[in-house]
Order: sequence, then C-alpha cells, then structure tokens
Amino acid sequence: MFLPPDHIIEKTARLALEEDLGTGDITTVLTVPGHLKGSARFITKETGVICGWPVVEKVFQILDPEIRLTVQSPEGAIVKEGEVVAEISGPLPAICSGERVALNFLQRLSGIATHTRSLRELLADFPHVQLVDTRKTTPGLRVLEKYAVRVGGGQNHRFTLSEFVLIKDNHLAAAGGIRPAVAAVKKNSPHTLKIEVEVETEEQVREALAAGVDIIMLDNMAPEEMAAMVKLVDGRALVEASGNITAENIRAVAATGVDIISVGGLTHSVKALDISLEVNQIY
Amino acid sequence: MFLPPDHIIEKTARLALEEDLGTGDITTVLTVPGHLKGSARFITKETGVICGWPVVEKVFQILDPEIRLTVQSPEGAIVKEGEVVAEISGPLPAICSGERVALNFLQRLSGIATHTRSLRELLADFPHVQLVDTRKTTPGLRVLEKYAVRVGGGQNHRFTLSEFVLIKDNHLAAAGGIRPAVAAVKKNSPHTLKIEVEVETEEQVREALAAGVDIIMLDNMAPEEMAAMVKLVDGRALVEASGNITAENIRAVAATGVDIISVGGLTHSVKALDISLEVNQIY
Amino acid sequence: MFLPPDHIIEKTARLALEEDLGTGDITTVLTVPGHLKGSARFITKETGVICGWPVVEKVFQILDPEIRLTVQSPEGAIVKEGEVVAEISGPLPAICSGERVALNFLQRLSGIATHTRSLRELLADFPHVQLVDTRKTTPGLRVLEKYAVRVGGGQNHRFTLSEFVLIKDNHLAAAGGIRPAVAAVKKNSPHTLKIEVEVETEEQVREALAAGVDIIMLDNMAPEEMAAMVKLVDGRALVEASGNITAENIRAVAATGVDIISVGGLTHSVKALDISLEVNQIY
Amino acid sequence: MFLPPDHIIEKTARLALEEDLGTGDITTVLTVPGHLKGSARFITKETGVICGWPVVEKVFQILDPEIRLTVQSPEGAIVKEGEVVAEISGPLPAICSGERVALNFLQRLSGIATHTRSLRELLADFPHVQLVDTRKTTPGLRVLEKYAVRVGGGQNHRFTLSEFVLIKDNHLAAAGGIRPAVAAVKKNSPHTLKIEVEVETEEQVREALAAGVDIIMLDNMAPEEMAAMVKLVDGRALVEASGNITAENIRAVAATGVDIISVGGLTHSVKALDISLEVNQIY
Amino acid sequence: MFLPPDHIIEKTARLALEEDLGTGDITTVLTVPGHLKGSARFITKETGVICGWPVVEKVFQILDPEIRLTVQSPEGAIVKEGEVVAEISGPLPAICSGERVALNFLQRLSGIATHTRSLRELLADFPHVQLVDTRKTTPGLRVLEKYAVRVGGGQNHRFTLSEFVLIKDNHLAAAGGIRPAVAAVKKNSPHTLKIEVEVETEEQVREALAAGVDIIMLDNMAPEEMAAMVKLVDGRALVEASGNITAENIRAVAATGVDIISVGGLTHSVKALDISLEVNQIY
Amino acid sequence: MFLPPDHIIEKTARLALEEDLGTGDITTVLTVPGHLKGSARFITKETGVICGWPVVEKVFQILDPEIRLTVQSPEGAIVKEGEVVAEISGPLPAICSGERVALNFLQRLSGIATHTRSLRELLADFPHVQLVDTRKTTPGLRVLEKYAVRVGGGQNHRFTLSEFVLIKDNHLAAAGGIRPAVAAVKKNSPHTLKIEVEVETEEQVREALAAGVDIIMLDNMAPEEMAAMVKLVDGRALVEASGNITAENIRAVAATGVDIISVGGLTHSVKALDISLEVNQIY
Repeated sequence: MFLPPDHIIEKTARLALEEDLGTGDITTVLTVPGHLKGSARFITKETGVICGWPVVEKVFQILDPEIRLTVQSPEGAIVKEGEVVAEISGPLPAICSGERVALNFLQRLSGIATHTRSLRELLADFPHVQLVDTRKTTPGLRVLEKYAVRVGGGQNHRFTLSEFVLIKDNHLAAAGGIRPAVAAVKKNSPHTLKIEVEVETEEQVREALAAGVDIIMLDNMAPEEMAAMVKLVDGRALVEASGNITAENIRAVAATGVDIISVGGLTHSVKALDISLEVNQIY
Repeated sequence: MFLPPDHIIEKTARLALEEDLGTGDITTVLTVPGHLKGSARFITKETGVICGWPVVEKVFQILDPEIRLTVQSPEGAIVKEGEVVAEISGPLPAICSGERVALNFLQRLSGIATHTRSLRELLADFPHVQLVDTRKTTPGLRVLEKYAVRVGGGQNHRFTLSEFVLIKDNHLAAAGGIRPAVAAVKKNSPHTLKIEVEVETEEQVREALAAGVDIIMLDNMAPEEMAAMVKLVDGRALVEASGNITAENIRAVAATGVDIISVGGLTHSVKALDISLEVNQIY
Repeated sequence: MFLPPDHIIEKTARLALEEDLGTGDITTVLTVPGHLKGSARFITKETGVICGWPVVEKVFQILDPEIRLTVQSPEGAIVKEGEVVAEISGPLPAICSGERVALNFLQRLSGIATHTRSLRELLADFPHVQLVDTRKTTPGLRVLEKYAVRVGGGQNHRFTLSEFVLIKDNHLAAAGGIRPAVAAVKKNSPHTLKIEVEVETEEQVREALAAGVDIIMLDNMAPEEMAAMVKLVDGRALVEASGNITAENIRAVAATGVDIISVGGLTHSVKALDISLEVNQIY
Repeated sequence: MFLPPDHIIEKTARLALEEDLGTGDITTVLTVPGHLKGSARFITKETGVICGWPVVEKVFQILDPEIRLTVQSPEGAIVKEGEVVAEISGPLPAICSGERVALNFLQRLSGIATHTRSLRELLADFPHVQLVDTRKTTPGLRVLEKYAVRVGGGQNHRFTLSEFVLIKDNHLAAAGGIRPAVAAVKKNSPHTLKIEVEVETEEQVREALAAGVDIIMLDNMAPEEMAAMVKLVDGRALVEASGNITAENIRAVAATGVDIISVGGLTHSVKALDISLEVNQIY
Repeated sequence: MFLPPDHIIEKTARLALEEDLGTGDITTVLTVPGHLKGSARFITKETGVICGWPVVEKVFQILDPEIRLTVQSPEGAIVKEGEVVAEISGPLPAICSGERVALNFLQRLSGIATHTRSLRELLADFPHVQLVDTRKTTPGLRVLEKYAVRVGGGQNHRFTLSEFVLIKDNHLAAAGGIRPAVAAVKKNSPHTLKIEVEVETEEQVREALAAGVDIIMLDNMAPEEMAAMVKLVDGRALVEASGNITAENIRAVAATGVDIISVGGLTHSVKALDISLEVNQIY
Repeated sequence: MFLPPDHIIEKTARLALEEDLGTGDITTVLTVPGHLKGSARFITKETGVICGWPVVEKVFQILDPEIRLTVQSPEGAIVKEGEVVAEISGPLPAICSGERVALNFLQRLSGIATHTRSLRELLADFPHVQLVDTRKTTPGLRVLEKYAVRVGGGQNHRFTLSEFVLIKDNHLAAAGGIRPAVAAVKKNSPHTLKIEVEVETEEQVREALAAGVDIIMLDNMAPEEMAAMVKLVDGRALVEASGNITAENIRAVAATGVDIISVGGLTHSVKALDISLEVNQIY
C-alpha cells in the first residue's frame, strides 16, 4: 500500500477547490467571523473501509495551513456506523469552506476501498488470486482511485497506456492476428515492458502461448472454459479473468485457477460511503 | 437542457487523455498501422438514458481532427440493450487510443442521466416539484455531471459557493442564529443572490420566514413534519427537502407539497451505464 | 466587506510578477547586494481610500517569504497626501524587485475604492439605495476590482455570466420578447438564480412584471421616466438604474426611488491613486 | 506599430473569457436559440482612436470559429461619435456571450490609444521628442497596453525588468552611488543592454556622464532645471524627462530639449472609450 | 519506431517558442513586411542521422498555420554535408521567427540519433544485443530524446519511475538486501511490471536469480566479469550491462553475451548536428 | 554572476520531476521504508566547474521540505575527480526519488560551466574580449543554461527575441538591405534597445556604420578579414565575431581585436560533467 505522489494529490485537491469556490465562499465569508476557530468530527454513517486522509488533509491545508487533522481510523481501517474517525481543528472559515470538497474525496475513495475489500473477502479461500482494477476510472482521478483499490486490499493493473502492452481485439484485427501483433511489439517495445493479450478462444490461447506473451486475458469466458484454459496454459503465462465479474460470480471465477481477476466495477460504479463532518466546538 | 461551455469540455477531455496516455499508447502505436482507417459502433448493453456525446466527440477530435461521430441516439434518448447508439469513423489509431477515455465519460454521464430520469419518473404525478442535484459531485467533473442531471430531466442546484447563499448548521452556529446570519448576508451580499437557510425545527422555519429568506431547506425531516412546514410557510418562501432521499421515499416527500427535492445520490453514487465500442470496419 | 479567495490573489500576483520580471530583474541583481535588508514606506500623494494590502503582501511574499508588511492605514481607510500608510521590511532585493507590481495593484484598487466612495458619499441622503458595479472590469482583475468596490462602500452586481440571469436587449430580440424569454428561463434555470430584465419602455416594465422577474433594469431612462417606473413597479420587483450614471446625475437618479444604481465607471475608467514606495532604511 | 505575439493575445483573451463565463452564460443559453445567426455593429459613442481589433477577433473566434469580423475603422483610426467602426457576424449565441469581454478590451485599449494620441498631438512642434510609456500598466495586460500606446503614436519604454538596466534611487542607495552602481552593471550585464540612471541633481548628471550611461532620466525636475541639464549633457547621452507629466505641462517639458518624455498616465489612469455593440440582424 | 504523442510535441514546442519570443520578435516585426512569403531550405553541414521533423513542423505551424514543410530526408535518413534535407514555405515572418527554435530541436534530436546510430553500427555483429538509453535525459525533453534514440536504431529503457521497478544500490541498502527488496516489490507492485536489480558482485547475481527478477543489471563490471555473470545467469533473466560504456568499449561489452547495453551518453552528452536554414525565395 | 529568478528555477524543477515521477516512484515506495532518513554525497568523477546547486536544492525541497543541502564546492568552484562537493540529508525516500533529476540538472549545467571556463582560460591574454553565448540553448532551459555560462566566466547575449534587435541575413533580404532595415527599426523600436547587424562583407560593415548601429556581427569571417574590419570600425561600434568558433581558433579570433566572441557550442553541444550521488548514511 503506497501513497500517490504529493504533487498529484495537491493538483487534484486544488482543482476541486477552485471548481467549488468559484469567486469565493460567500456564505461563509458573510456569516462566519474570521477570527473564530473550531473543531469538527468526521463521523461515518455506515460500515466500510475508510480511505482518503492524505487528500482531506491537503484540501484543508490549501485553504489554511493552520488546520490540523487528527486521524483516529487510519487508511484502510474498517469503520462502523456512528464512529468518530477523525477530527479537524483550526480556523472555522476554512473548516466550513473545505467541508464539501473534503467529503467528496473521502466518501468516494472510501466507497472504492469498501467495495474492493468486500470482493477481496469473498476471495478469502484464494489468497494467491490477485484482485485488480482496470482503466475504467473517473477521468482525472485515476491515481487516487487506484490508490483506494490498494487500500481496500486490491492490486493495480496498469495506470497508463504507456507502461504496459495490452493487445485487445481491435489491435488484433488491425495487426492481423496475435502472431504478427506480438512480433511487432517484441521487436519495437522497450525490454522493460510486459505483454498481455486479450483472447476469446482456445485457439487464441494457443497462439498467445506460441508468441510468448507474459499474460493472457480471458475475456468474458464461462468458468468451465476458464478452467480449461488455465490447464492449457499450465503456468507458461499468467492468466487474467476479465469481463462482468461481480460479487455473484467472483468465487466461481477464482476457483478456475486464474492468477488475476480484474473488475471494472471497483471504480466505474462507486457507492459513496456515507460520512459527515460535524462542528463540535467553536472558540 | 443546455450544454456546458466548450472550454470546460475541452479542458476536462484533455486532462483525461493526458492521464490515460502517459508518454504514449504503445500498444496501438506498435500494432495498428498508422494509415488504417475504420469505424466503430457504440453499443449499449442495458437500458438507460444516453448522455455525453459532446465529450466523446471532443475526446476523439483532440486525438485526430479527422474523426467523425454520427449519433443515432441523441442526448437524453432512452436506449435499450444491444442498440447501436452512435458510430465513429476515421483514423483507426485514434479510435483505439481514445476508446477507454470516451467510454469512461459516456458511461458515467449516462449513468447519472439514467438515475435522474428514474427518479423523475417516480415524480410523474408531481410535475411542479423540482428534482435537483447537490454539490456532492466528483471532484473535477461538476459541470459535466450537473449537465447529465439536466439531460436526465432534473434541474441544478448551485454550481459553486460563490453564486448563491446557503446558510447551513455550521454557519448558524458561528453566526449566532438565523436572524443575525441572514442580516449579515442581506447587508453585504450582492442583490443578485438568493438566500437559503437549512433548518431542522419549526422554530427555525419561523425564524427564517421572519428573516425573509428566499428558500427554506428542510433537513432530514419526516414527511409529516415536512407537510406541516409547507403549510406553515404557505408560499412565503420556496421549500426544499433534503437528506437521504431515495427512490424508496421520494414520492412520499413530493406528496408533502415541497417545491424542490435535492438528491445527493444523483451524482455521488453512480452506476455506470454499460456501453461498449466495437470496431466493425477497417480499411 | 469580504476578501477575495487566496488562490485568486496568488494567481493574479504571480502572473503580474512573471510579466514584469521576464528572465530576471537585472538592475536589482547587479546593484543591490543580496545580503542587504531594509525597510520602505508607502506614502500617499493625494487624498483617497486605500485598498489592496492583501495583494501587496502576497506580491512581496512570493518574492521573499521573509518580507513583512505593517499596515498603518487598513483597507478602506481614508488617507491624505503625505501620509505613511504602511511599511515593508526585509531583504532589500525583494523590496526593489516587487515595488512596481505592488504599486500597480495598490494604486489601481485604491483608485477604484476612492471613486466608489466619492459616489457613495453623494448618496448620503439615500442610504437604502445600493451603489453597484458592472462587468465592465479589467480583463483578468474582476474579482479584485469588485473587492475594491466593496472596500469603497459599494456593492457587487454579478461576477460571472453563470450566477445570475440578466436578459438584455439582444436576448429579447432573439427570444421574441420578455414573456417567452422569461418563460424559457423559468423553465430551465436553477431555482437558485434570480432573474433580471433590461427594459427601455413602460410597456416592457409591465411585461416584466407580468412575467414575474426579480429585478427590472431601467436602461438609460431620464430621471422623470425612472420615477414613473418606480411608481408603476410599486415594490413588486427591485428596480435598477443603469447607463451613463456619473457624479453629475447620480443624486437625481437616486431621488427617483430606484433600489439599485449600477455604474460601469466604477471600474472601466479608473484614475490610479498616487502612492509611492520610499526606502528609508538599509542595513 | 507592431502586433503583440499571437500566443499572448490568445492567452489573455482566454483568461478573460473564462473569468466572465464561469460555468456558462446561462442567460444566452436559455434565451438565444442555438441555430440563430446574426450580425452586430460596433458603434463609437465619442471621438477617439480605435484600438484592439486583433483581441476582439480572438475573443469571438475562441467562442465560435465561424464568427467573422469586418473592420471599417482599422487600428489607429480616428473615430467619431455614432460611427459604425466594425461589424461582427455569425452564430448569435457567441455574439451575445462575447460582447462584454470584447468591449472591455476594445474600450480600454482605445482609451489608451486616444489619450496617447492627444498627448502626441500636443507635441506636434516637437517631432523628435519621443513620447513613451512606463511599467505602470495593468497587471496582466502589459503587452496589450503597450501596443495601444504604439497605436496612439507613442513609443515603448522597456517591457520587463530583464531587458534593460534602469538604476533608480533605491538601487543607488544600495550600491553606494552612481559610479559603483554603473560599474557593477557594466562588468556583469550582457553587452546587449543599454543602461539608464535616474537622477535628481546636477551633480548626479555629471556622475552619470562620467560613468558612461546611455540614458539619463531627470526625475521630477522643473522645466528650467531640465533645460540646464540638457545643455550640460550636450548629446553625450539621451535625456528622458519623467514624473507627473500631463497635458498641462508636456509642451513645457518638450521645450527643454529632452529626447524622451515618459508618462505613467498613458496606462495607469485610463478613461475607457465609449463603444457599444448592437445586434442589427438576426437570421 | 513510433512518434511521441502529439500533445507532448505541442506542449514542448509551445514552451520553447514562448521562451524564445518573450514579448515578441521585434527584429522580424520591424524589418520583415507582414505580407511577404518565402521559402527556406534546411541544409546539413555534416554527416549524420536526421531526426525531428514532427517538432519542426509543429513549431512553425504554431506560429502560422499556413506554413508548409516538405521533407526530402525523412526521420532516420542518413544525410551528408551540404544536403538540402527539407524545405519550408509560407509567410516569411513566421519563417524568420521560428528558425532558431526549430533548429534547436532539429539539431539536438539529430545529434542524438546520429550518436545512437554510430554505436548501433559498432554492434553490427551483435544484432540481438539491444542498445538502450537511460533516464539521463535533458529535463523537459525526455519523450523527444527517447524518440531520437529509437530513430537512431536504439531502444528505450523506462520513461518514468512509475512504469518499471529498478532496484538500485540505495534501495538495496534501505531494504536490507536483494531478497527483502524483491519480496516487498513482488508483494505490492502491479503484476504488469517487470523487476530489475542492479548488482555489483557475483553473490548479488545469485541472490537476484534466487529472488526471481526479470532483468539483472551489471553495474560497471569488467568485460570478463560480465561474461562470467552471463554464463552464471544462463538465460534465467535478461542481463543488462551499464556504466561508462562508450564507443571504445561497447563491442567488448557486447561480446560478453549480455542482452542489453544501456548508454547514458546517448542523451546526456549530445553534440548537435550542424544544420542551417537558408531563405532561398521571397515573394 | 546572478541567479535566475526563483519562479523559473521552481517551474523548471517541477516539470522535470513530474516528467520523471509519472504516477509515482514505485521502486522507492516499495523498498525504502518511509521513516528512514539518510545522507548522501555528491562526488565528482572528473575535473570541471560545478554549477547548479540552486536547482538541486529546489528539486529535493519540492519532494520534501525537510531535505537539507550542504555545499562544499560552491557555484563556479573548480572541482577534481573524487571530490565530495556537497552533501544532502533528510528523508531517504526523497533522496532516492530526486537523485536522477537533480543529477541531470547538475551534470548538464556543470558541463556548460566547465566548457565556458576552458574557453575563457584560452582568452587569458585578452581580458577585455567578452565571451558570450547564443540562443542555441536547449528548449526549456535557456535561463538556466545562460546562468551556467555566467558561472563559467562567460557573459550573455540576448535571452529573448524581444529584448534586443539583431538583424540577420534573412531580415536584410526581406527589408532590402541594411539601410532600410536599420531605419525601420530606429523609427519604431523602443529607445531602450540596442541594434546589431550581422554582416558578411566590408561593404556591409560600411553600411552598418553609416546606419548607426550599436554592434556589428562579423559572420564566419577569416581572422585576417576580421582584423581589417575591426580597424575599419575603429571604435564606432562594438564588433562581435560569430560562427564556428571553437577552442582551436578562439585565440586567433580574439587577436583580431574584436570586442565580443559568441560561441553557440557553449550550450548546443554539452558534455555532462560526471557526478554521482552516493548514500553514505541511513538512520
């Protein structure tokens, strides 16, 4: 579990604050005297995995460097309804102005971590199967959302199109098949990159093995078919299952023996974790 | 229903593409010959409301100005499983490189429009009740997500903290109550802005009316209580219901006679609409 | 009177410094030894209202965080010729390099505050009449200039085209009149926004009232005509006078009973307040 | 007379549009049907020198590339009250949304050009005297404002602190006088830069001559004193008069024989030229 | 050989132009009449490999979209002294203003391609040995410089710290050796990334093999030692030679049987290829 | 010798770090425990002139403000093989993540300073001859590279196209010769700018003198011809020698009596100075 680079957290937090503040938080400026200080508590309204404190802290410190965040439930902790998970204190105007943006990040990232963990727990009997995300992330938030997946116990698939070669159906159609596609890649790509091919048939699995790829992605196969492919591959490449995998079928998929299960729903359909921020002291 | 300004669409699309491309889409570059052209079809995999074509078009045109998008199901259309909703044609490398980013926008915005419409339909008997969003949007995507709400038949609450005065519990605590808070605002805010106060009790409703606010937000009240407050207000201000309103209780809330129902879940917990892009011609 | 958000002050100050510094302040670098410290006094050369310290402080702190600003005449104070209104102290190179940019902001904003106050004083007998600015601000400085208007005792009209609906002659021509224009707006705009219509005739005033707008702007009417319109409106909407209002005619306009007087000249034709910065100590 | 670089015009125009549009021009979007086209005429309301068409054109083309600007009175033309100086045609929404920003640029730049020309005309008998601006420009608009000075018949002093050495009183105090200051500069500055010193006394003029500067700036001297200094310098350096020079005293200053007269008021206190944009056709 | 993404070429070209233009190319503006067109020829002054046309084209098209570039010697072509390698035609001011920036890119990238090719030719007998670059690139130009390496016949090592795991001496010291370092990486890094370890001794090679890394980098070993290590590894990992490899010793290194040779000097010490741009027609 | 402005150092350092970090330094994050601190020594591997500490310090402080740099060999010091020239201490992850970027700047700038000094030393007998750079700098690094030239004992030619008038062959062709070109410039350029003309023949030198330029650049002349031209000019303008001047011929050029020698090779063909960073303590 590792943090995103600070400049990405900062850039994302600033964009969000500028988007929300417009030309100024007129309500707070006119109703909250500037000299007031206070503290407020983050309280979870439902069970889940908490994630996002580094972003929350950055949001408030951009507004006012005097703000202090004290975290009771650290990244990845399982929290329950009604729990005080952190407290923020300092100048009251900054607490009021930053509340919504901070919660928007915290609730979304916690929602991702919570969903990831729930799937990971379904895989308790399959500790060697990796649960990974996809590029189906919210535009602008990829690095943060993939971080939330790690916090929830998942692992990451590639972050960008430049760091890994994944040959999908459209590429295969353009290149004329697996053999020429992989050959073109092997000839010209950096030796530092792994190669994965998306396949739909047993014949393609055989071709991929013959071409010497590192990973084979089984796209939308039924579990029995996957199991047969795993047997066919027999350790000569990693095998990744992909396509409409949910809580309902993930155990069946894992039981096929695949090495990796990628789930777009970890990030593309997120239910925010319900968390509120309540001012409890003004001074 | 109005479009977001073009510079916001463009800026958001560029950020998303740069985030995804990294130092270049190495798979496409190595497997898809640069001279190839093609076309691909957007196909919906489930029923919903389509939304996001202006962003999709921008994404591809940034990658290659020759790309053409032909839309069969325009913004706001109800689409069914298996429908071809649009076709894209032009240089094949750009089609391959832009696919994921385009779908990430399209699926998310369509998900919001779909959910908004489903709630709006529940309010069919209450045509005068406005269904509005909140500031619980994804950081960086507020203008686009609020657009999707409009496409789905909802209306927008404020976009930024600077264009409207909404006095919430924390502001009231700091200002010493509704009377002084509203007085401070009336004295100093532009005459162009409306004022809303969030209240939790009947006494606060009376105070808000006495202070002369434009809108009263009933926070987390039970339907019967809301109905009583609507009667009490009696047209002297708009009344907005807010707080954990879902498909289950929205009709009961509407039946109380409130003018506006705001639903955070329109944007904070989005289920992406399942849509794929399939290359159908290469030439 | 409220401050602009810090990120807008900072962004504006940085742009101004980069514009002025080019590739470096070669004169200061070559003639002012880097270890020297000093202090300098801001001295006003004429009577006026001082405005701009938050920007001045930011300009110098960007150049050198050790710089300290001590303000004798705070925002909005009336200053006289020859007064020492503030003192700046710290590393001498930063004082020399930031002088011009700091004064450019301070003189301009003070000029706006001074002019605003002089008009406000002409309205001493009309305390309920609001004196407001327009969007005729200097490109890039809107938030700061509108702040200076507040410091001078004025109030603000809208900041952007997105936070308020003001239907002007061109919109009316396109929409086919006040009735359809207001109807279109009421149907589609957020409930959070007020609606104003610009009118030139009595008939238009009647139409605007019938359409139910919040504010009616009387464009370039003679005082007697305005007075008649105010009587006609009779409190059913706010009435704003607009168009070529200056010190010469502002009292006559106020006497018509309008609620709001908007003056483009508050920001579009600014006489800078004459202020100098004089080094008085080097150590 | 030369145009500012296109990227500066574009960057400035974009900033101004984003500042004005916020999250979208809601009035235009809701009242002006998107398919309408039209034309509008720029009409001057007073006599002056027109300046700013390249910026006006850029503003509208950013909003909609189909917009066409036809200029009747080109940059630098003298215009009278009631004159149609240009016409804009194309999509009506863009005409409405860009009007204010375009006029803000046009009126301000024309105001500068007009004032510059009026001073230049006072110097009709002194064709060899240069009338130049200063760095007292509006933050963010320096390049455009200095362009307007040229359009009005003036010339430019330096644009940035890096392209010219101007040793002022504070630098002299820090360096220990003219001799050491100039020596330090001559030793270390690029051979491509000229050197100017600001002086207040005859002794300083002699020192500056001895040090071999290119230009001597006489700061706030009385005309007789200036004349004496011009005689003393006798062509060994250019002589620049500076400090509170206005229409009242500029001829007297010119008569002293100085080579250059710099006037901060060309840009720091600008009266906008009154210009309106009136839609005359909709189709 | 694949092109960098267009947005990186454009961003880099814009930064370079803004850096060079400052507030405008005053010489060209004042001496080259705006209506003139012309053509100019790129002429090489020495033998080498040409590289950089996409950047050259972008530089001129940013200045003026009418400019056309006709390339005689395409990317990667071997050129000789006195050869006309391309011609540019269009508005003369843009040709003059863009000359230096275009040449700065072209000469530098051609210098890299030339040097890469010269080393690659030394490896003619070792076709299976990869010649790769490092992260010792010029700040801001990495993507372009690595492209030039490809054009010269080399291949690329990683572009960023996020796309590949390379454990160097400092990491080993912090992690406590190869075993724990690799274990930590394998447990937490995406399955999409390869792992390389930098080693200095035979014992480290054995540890690296035991830990199961993909690539072993032999740092600054003598050729005989390298040969022994290659034998020891025996195909169980790729072997990369690194450290002060130049034209003098590269063949000896290749002869050791390593798979990859990385050479920092491909990019950190570049001799620009001498190329000039000469106007040959004005019309 | 003066430092570049801080905002240019910071902007350049940030761009370089973002370019290198991508979505995060995964190796360091996974192998270097976050709580570890350490120190590391910069060690030169060859003789040269050190340059770049302000950039190095900025790079590390952006990564972690706790990092401290202690410099033993300050800017411009001559260093030898094996010397410890500076030490950096603080959080170990930041030391590891910033190493390459810091060295890329330090090695390149030191390479420029070293080469400049070696040429400057060849001019020991010609103390009054200025050795200056050109605009043949690396795109994006001009201000830093010109600083390195100063550190190495050289001086700077112009930084941008806007701060100096240099009329070259293409301008002359467009303007119709030296006389009209210089006349156009003199009429319209700020009085603050010097004028230089590039000439190839004696006749052009005479024309340039007649036109009254400040500097005459002799382009690619043989030493004897240069000497004749210097005699001809006879102090009426500065004389600059330019074109393919290297260590081999620079003394001969200086002996001709020219005032200035410009050498593109100071920046266009840089051999990085070999410097390493070695962690020597972890705690």
